[in-house]
Amino acid sequence: MIGGGPGAFIGGVHRIAATMDGEIELVCGAFSSDPEKSKQAGEQLNLQPQRVYGSYKEMIRVENDLPLDQRMDIVSIVTPNNVHFEPARLALENGFHVVLDKPLSFDWKEGKKLQEIAKKSQMLFCLTHTYTGYPMVKEARQQVLSGKFGPIRKIYVDYPQGWLSNLLEAANSGHSSRKQATWRTDPAQSGIAGAMGDIGTHAFNLAEYVSGLTVKKICADINTVVQGRKLDDDGTVLLKFDSGASGFLYATQIAAGEENNTRIRVYGEKGGVEWQQDMANTLIVKWFEKPAEIYRTGTPYVSSFAQHNTRVPAGHPEGYLEAFANLYRNFALCIKAKMKGIEPQPEWLDYPGVDEGVRGMMFIEKVIESGNSQKKWIELE
Amino acid sequence: MIGGGPGAFIGGVHRIAATMDGEIELVCGAFSSDPEKSKQAGEQLNLQPQRVYGSYKEMIRVENDLPLDQRMDIVSIVTPNNVHFEPARLALENGFHVVLDKPLSFDWKEGKKLQEIAKKSQMLFCLTHTYTGYPMVKEARQQVLSGKFGPIRKIYVDYPQGWLSNLLEAANSGHSSRKQATWRTDPAQSGIAGAMGDIGTHAFNLAEYVSGLTVKKICADINTVVQGRKLDDDGTVLLKFDSGASGFLYATQIAAGEENNTRIRVYGEKGGVEWQQDMANTLIVKWFEKPAEIYRTGTPYVSSFAQHNTRVPAGHPEGYLEAFANLYRNFALCIKAKMKGIEPQPEWLDYPGVDEGVRGMMFIEKVIESGNSQKKWIELE
Amino acid sequence: MIGGGPGAFIGGVHRIAATMDGEIELVCGAFSSDPEKSKQAGEQLNLQPQRVYGSYKEMIRVENDLPLDQRMDIVSIVTPNNVHFEPARLALENGFHVVLDKPLSFDWKEGKKLQEIAKKSQMLFCLTHTYTGYPMVKEARQQVLSGKFGPIRKIYVDYPQGWLSNLLEAANSGHSSRKQATWRTDPAQSGIAGAMGDIGTHAFNLAEYVSGLTVKKICADINTVVQGRKLDDDGTVLLKFDSGASGFLYATQIAAGEENNTRIRVYGEKGGVEWQQDMANTLIVKWFEKPAEIYRTGTPYVSSFAQHNTRVPAGHPEGYLEAFANLYRNFALCIKAKMKGIEPQPEWLDYPGVDEGVRGMMFIEKVIESGNSQKKWIELE
Amino acid sequence: MIGGGPGAFIGGVHRIAATMDGEIELVCGAFSSDPEKSKQAGEQLNLQPQRVYGSYKEMIRVENDLPLDQRMDIVSIVTPNNVHFEPARLALENGFHVVLDKPLSFDWKEGKKLQEIAKKSQMLFCLTHTYTGYPMVKEARQQVLSGKFGPIRKIYVDYPQGWLSNLLEAANSGHSSRKQATWRTDPAQSGIAGAMGDIGTHAFNLAEYVSGLTVKKICADINTVVQGRKLDDDGTVLLKFDSGASGFLYATQIAAGEENNTRIRVYGEKGGVEWQQDMANTLIVKWFEKPAEIYRTGTPYVSSFAQHNTRVPAGHPEGYLEAFANLYRNFALCIKAKMKGIEPQPEWLDYPGVDEGVRGMMFIEKVIESGNSQKKWIELE
Repeated sequence: MIGGGPGAFIGGVHRIAATMDGEIELVCGAFSSDPEKSKQAGEQLNLQPQRVYGSYKEMIRVENDLPLDQRMDIVSIVTPNNVHFEPARLALENGFHVVLDKPLSFDWKEGKKLQEIAKKSQMLFCLTHTYTGYPMVKEARQQVLSGKFGPIRKIYVDYPQGWLSNLLEAANSGHSSRKQATWRTDPAQSGIAGAMGDIGTHAFNLAEYVSGLTVKKICADINTVVQGRKLDDDGTVLLKFDSGASGFLYATQIAAGEENNTRIRVYGEKGGVEWQQDMANTLIVKWFEKPAEIYRTGTPYVSSFAQHNTRVPAGHPEGYLEAFANLYRNFALCIKAKMKGIEPQPEWLDYPGVDEGVRGMMFIEKVIESGNSQKKWIELE
Repeated sequence: MIGGGPGAFIGGVHRIAATMDGEIELVCGAFSSDPEKSKQAGEQLNLQPQRVYGSYKEMIRVENDLPLDQRMDIVSIVTPNNVHFEPARLALENGFHVVLDKPLSFDWKEGKKLQEIAKKSQMLFCLTHTYTGYPMVKEARQQVLSGKFGPIRKIYVDYPQGWLSNLLEAANSGHSSRKQATWRTDPAQSGIAGAMGDIGTHAFNLAEYVSGLTVKKICADINTVVQGRKLDDDGTVLLKFDSGASGFLYATQIAAGEENNTRIRVYGEKGGVEWQQDMANTLIVKWFEKPAEIYRTGTPYVSSFAQHNTRVPAGHPEGYLEAFANLYRNFALCIKAKMKGIEPQPEWLDYPGVDEGVRGMMFIEKVIESGNSQKKWIELE
Repeated sequence: MIGGGPGAFIGGVHRIAATMDGEIELVCGAFSSDPEKSKQAGEQLNLQPQRVYGSYKEMIRVENDLPLDQRMDIVSIVTPNNVHFEPARLALENGFHVVLDKPLSFDWKEGKKLQEIAKKSQMLFCLTHTYTGYPMVKEARQQVLSGKFGPIRKIYVDYPQGWLSNLLEAANSGHSSRKQATWRTDPAQSGIAGAMGDIGTHAFNLAEYVSGLTVKKICADINTVVQGRKLDDDGTVLLKFDSGASGFLYATQIAAGEENNTRIRVYGEKGGVEWQQDMANTLIVKWFEKPAEIYRTGTPYVSSFAQHNTRVPAGHPEGYLEAFANLYRNFALCIKAKMKGIEPQPEWLDYPGVDEGVRGMMFIEKVIESGNSQKKWIELE
Repeated sequence: MIGGGPGAFIGGVHRIAATMDGEIELVCGAFSSDPEKSKQAGEQLNLQPQRVYGSYKEMIRVENDLPLDQRMDIVSIVTPNNVHFEPARLALENGFHVVLDKPLSFDWKEGKKLQEIAKKSQMLFCLTHTYTGYPMVKEARQQVLSGKFGPIRKIYVDYPQGWLSNLLEAANSGHSSRKQATWRTDPAQSGIAGAMGDIGTHAFNLAEYVSGLTVKKICADINTVVQGRKLDDDGTVLLKFDSGASGFLYATQIAAGEENNTRIRVYGEKGGVEWQQDMANTLIVKWFEKPAEIYRTGTPYVSSFAQHNTRVPAGHPEGYLEAFANLYRNFALCIKAKMKGIEPQPEWLDYPGVDEGVRGMMFIEKVIESGNSQKKWIELE
C-alpha cells in the first residue's frame, strides 16, 4: 500500500476492503512521504518492520528484488491525485498489479499515458469506482443491458453531499474532516476540479456503467459556492449519450444536511431502475402501467452478477465496505486466474479499470471547460 | 364553471375542491362547447336546467343580468389553454372573480394582457398551481423565508411522469387517457410547449414559491422523445436565481413507471427542506451536522400557514384534492373578506394569482427558446 | 346529521366525506343537545333555519312529516357512544337510512338489539370503519380473497397513537384536544373500553375485513398507562382465527410521538400484503423468493374495487377524507339502486354495516374480559 | 474456530467479522467433526496444515501445549446448539477466551453451568447477539438510558422471516438453504425451540438491551405452522417488564416474503426510538408534539458508543458484517486491555456475554412452557 497513513480516510477503507474475503493480505507499505510516519503506521498494522518503507520508490525497488513467492503481488495506491501517476507507472513497469483510488490521475494527459503504460505492461489494473461494486448496481446494469426496458431514454444521477458547506479547509477550522477537505480543495493536489473530480467522476462512471451507454456531449453549470474555496464545490451537468438518450448528473458538496446518498435512475421505453446508496440492498424496478418490483440482495432471483457479489442471505444488509471489497475480490480472482492460466468468469471481470479512469479524466477536463464556457454543448473527445 | 364536461379530468377535481369546505357551491356552468353535452353534464351535476348554458359567452351574459344575490360570484375556467384568455377576460370585465387552471394563457403576450385586465378589473384571480396548496409546501416556504437556513444556495425540483411514454394521442391508441393526451400534445390547443407547459410550469412555480427567489437565467435541454409527438415531452432546465442561488428543474412525461412524484429540495448555508408529493404530509428539514427533523401536517408545532390549510389531525393523510381545495378555500375567504370589507389574513392571501401566471408564461416562452438555442444562458425578461 | 356541533372532530369529517362526490347534500341537523348550539352550527353550515333542530327526536319527527321528496333520506349519527342506539333506532323505525360512527353502540347487548331493528326495518345501515374505505385496503382484501397467497397463516395489525400520552382529559389540561379526550376516556359516554373501543375496534375490523377470516379466540394484555385515567389507553391482543391462522393486533394511545399509522400485514403460504396509512396509496405485495411488488392507487392494473374507490390518476395522493367519502358514496349508490329497484354492483355493497358493528361490540366485551382474566384464551361468542 | 466448515453460513460471517479490523487473525481450526472436511476447510482458508485439527478436543489440547506467544487466544464456537457447552467448557477451563454463537447452550441448565464455569475461569466470554453491535442500536440504548424519554412504557420487537415457509428441511427439498434449515428444526441439535431459539432470543435480547429493563412475565402463542416440522416456526409473546412497562415480541420464520427486518420500538412518557435492520444506519427519535428526529451513523452528534462502533463517514452504509465485527472488535479490545492490565473503556465493554446467554436460555424454556400452557402469565425465574 502506498499512502493511507495517519489521518487518512480512504486508506483504512482499502485495507478492510482488500482483506475482507481472505483473498488478499497486507504485507508491506509506504504509508507516508514522511518515513517516520510510515514506520508508525506499519507498526500499528502489525507489519514486519523490514517491509515498511520510507517511500514508494524504495518499496517498489526492494519488493521487486524479493523472490517471486515472497514479494507483494498488488500495489494499492491511496494518495492524493497528484501522487497517482508516478507510483502507478513504477508499479506497472516493475510487474506489479495496481489498485488505484479514483480519479485516475492529476489530469487527462497523464491519464492517457498511464493507460498506455498499463496496456503495455499486461499487469491488471483496478480503479476504485466503489459504486460499481454494489450488488444492486450490478443488478441494475444487468437488467438494463438485457434489453427488457427497451431503448434507454433518460439517465439521472444524483450525488449530494453537504460536508463542505463551510470552509473546512481553512487553517483555523479545527474540524475533524479538515485533512480530508484540505487536499481535495487544493488545485496543486487535486487538479483542476474539486467536487467534479471527487464525486462527479463517480456519478459519471455510474451513468455509463449502469446504462451501458457513452456520454457524448455535456453542458455544465459549475460553481464554487463557499467563499474562499479554490475549486468547484457544486455542479449540475446536462448529458447527451451516443444512443440519443439524455439526462443529467449533479454533484454537490454544499447541500447542507446531505451525507452521501448517491442515486441513479435509468428509464427505457417500457420501464427502468432506481437505486440509491441509502437503500443499497434494494433495486426498484419500474414498469409502465404495471406494478413496480423490489429486487433485493441475497435472493435467489437476482442475476449471477448480484449473487456473486453478496456474502450473506437476504435481509442482512451489506454496505459500502462490502461494495469496496467486491472490487478487490474480483480483482484478486482475475489475478489468480491469470496466474493459473485459467479463463476468468464474466462476474470476476466486472470491475472498473484504466479505461474507465481515462473516461473520468476526460469528464473532468470537459466539465470544467463547459463550466467556464458560454457555448452550450461541449463534446467529450 | 367553464369546461369540465364528459371525459375531462381536471373539471371534476375543481368541483370537488371548490365545494369541499362548504364555502363555494356549484350553481351554473357551460361545460362544453357542444350545448347538448353541456346540458347532459349539468343534469348529472343536479344543476337547475336554466343555469346550464350552451356557451361561456351566454353564461356570462345571462348570469350578469341576474340580481346580485342570485348570480354566480366566481367563474372557474377548466378548458384547454387556447380557451383561457377569452372567457377569463369576459368574466373579469363583467365583474366575476376568476379561478383559472394553469398555465395562464396560450402564450406570454396573452398572459400579459390578461394580467392588465385582471388588475384593472379589481376582481380577484386565482391560478391553480396545486402544489402551493399543500400544507407542507407552505411550511417549507415559511421555514425558508424565516432565514433559519441562512442564504439559499441550491434549489432542485423534480417532476417525473411516465404516462406519455407511448403515443397515447395517436388516433388508434384506444387508451383511457387518450383525451387527456390529445389536447396536451396539440400545439393548437396547448401552445408552444407540451411537458414544459403542463408540468414544467408547476415545477417552476414551486421553485420560486418555496425559495422566495426569482429565476433570472435558464439553460434548457428540451426533447420530444416519443416519435410522432408534436410537442416536447421531456426536459431539464438549469436555473440561476437573482440571489446567486442555482439549481435545476426537470419535467418529463416519458419516465416509464413514474406517476407524479413532484419533489422539491432547497438548501441554505445551514440546512434545508425536502418535500415530495408521495409523502405529502411530511416535510424533511435537514441540518448541517445535526439530526434531520420530520415535520408533519396536523401537528401543533407547524406554522400557522400549514395549520390553516389542514382539516384533520396528524396521522390522517390529506392529499391532492385537499391541496387543491385549499386554493379554493383561501380564494373564497379573500372574496368574502372583500365583500365584508375586512382585511384578509396573511394565510388567506397565500394562493397563486395572475402574476405567478405571467411568470409561468415567461418560463414557457424562454424554456422553448433555450431548448432551440446554442446559446448557453437565456435571461428571463 | 345528529351531533357534530362546535368543537367536534368527526362531525366535520362526516360532512366533507358525505358531500365530496355530489351524491349527498346536508339538508338538516340536530347538531347538539343544546338547541342554541345546534342553531349556531346550522347557521354556520348555511342550512335553512327551519331544518335546524333542537334535538334528534324533533328532527326525526318533523322530517318524517315532510313530503317524501323533501325530507332527508339518510341520518348521520356522530355523537358519543352512549348516544348511538336511541337515535339510530328512531331513525330506522321511521324509515331513514342510517350512517353511524363506530363503535356501534354503548355495549354489546344494545348492539344486538340495533342489529335486529336494522334488519327488520329494511333500511340500509353504514358503520364508518374508515380504513375499509381506502382503495388499497380494498385491493389487499381482493388479493387475499383471490387465493393467490394460499391459505392465510398470519395477520398482524398495528394501531399506534400517542395523543393520550398525558392526562389530556384533566380539567385543567387546557389542551386543544381536551374535548376529544374527555368523552373517549369517560365510561359513562364511551362504555367499558377506551383505546380498545376507539381504535381497537378499527384494528379488529381491519383484520377480519382484509383476511376474510373470523377471529375465534383472543388473549389480551390491557393497560391503563396514564395515571388517573378511567379507561384503558393501551393493549395488545393475541388472535386466533377460525381457519387456524393466528396473529395479533395492538392499539395504543400512549406511544408518545406516534400519530395514526394504522398498519396491516397478512401472510399466506406463498406471500402476502402490507398496507399502512402513512403510505395509503401503496400496497406492498410480498412473495416467497420472488421480488415484492408495489401496487398503487389510480393505476389500470388494480382490481375494480380499488378503481371504483379512486377519484384521481396515479400519483395524485388520496387520503383519509377520500377513504371516508368512499363509505358514503357506496352507501349512497346502494340507496339509489334500491330506490330505482336496480341491483347494486358488488363494489357498491362493499361498505361496513351493522353486522361488522356487532362483531366490534363483541370484541370490546371480550377484550376487556380477557384483560381482566387469568385465563389465557377467551372465545368470541 | 470450532465448526464453520463447508456449507455453513455463520462460520464465514464470524471469520469476516473477527478479522475485519485487523485485531484478530484466524490461526487454527477444527471446522468439522469429520477430520477430512476440517482439513479441506483449513486449506481453503490458507491455514498452516499442522494447525487444522480433526476435532475440537485435539485443537484445545494441542494449542494448550504451544508456547503462550504462539497459541491461539480466542476460541470461536460456531456449531449447532448441542455442541456449544462442551467445547466452551473445555476452552474456558484451558484458559482460552471464548466467542460463542447464540443461543448459549442446548438448554437452560447447561447454560447455568457454563455461566459458573465462565465466571470461575476468569476468561472473557462473548455471545454473538449481533443486533447489539449495530451503532444505531447502541445509540438507541444510550438515549433510552439517558432518561430523556421519561419512564419507559412500551417495548415492541418484530422479527419477521419467511425462509422456512416451506418444509425446506425435508430430505428431498433440494433447497440451497436445506442444511441451514435441517439442524435448526431438529430437536436433537437445536433443543426445545426452533424459531424462538434461533431468532426469538435475538428479539428478547434486543428488548432488554435497548430498554435497559428486565422481562418479568410472558404470555406466549407458539405455533408450528408448516406441517411436518418438529419445532416451532412462529410465535408472539406478550411481555411484562420489572418496571411495569409492557410490550410484545414476535418472531416468525413463515412470514412468506419477509427477509430479516428486525425492528425495535421503545416508547417513554415523552418520546421514544425506532430502529430497523433494513435502515440500519438510521435511528428515528420520536417526540410527543414535537418533530421526530433522524439520527445517523458516522455523524458528530451521536453518542461515543455509536461513534466507537462506526468505521466510515456518514452516508457510507455499514451493515450486518460490521455490526458483527463490532462484537469481535470490542471483545478483542477488552482482551488486550486485560493482557496489558489497563482499564477497558465503557464502549469496549459493551458486548453481550454469558449473563445475556443465560437470560436467553431462560426465555427459551419459559416461552415454550407458556406456549403449551393454559395459564396466562408465566414468570421468568
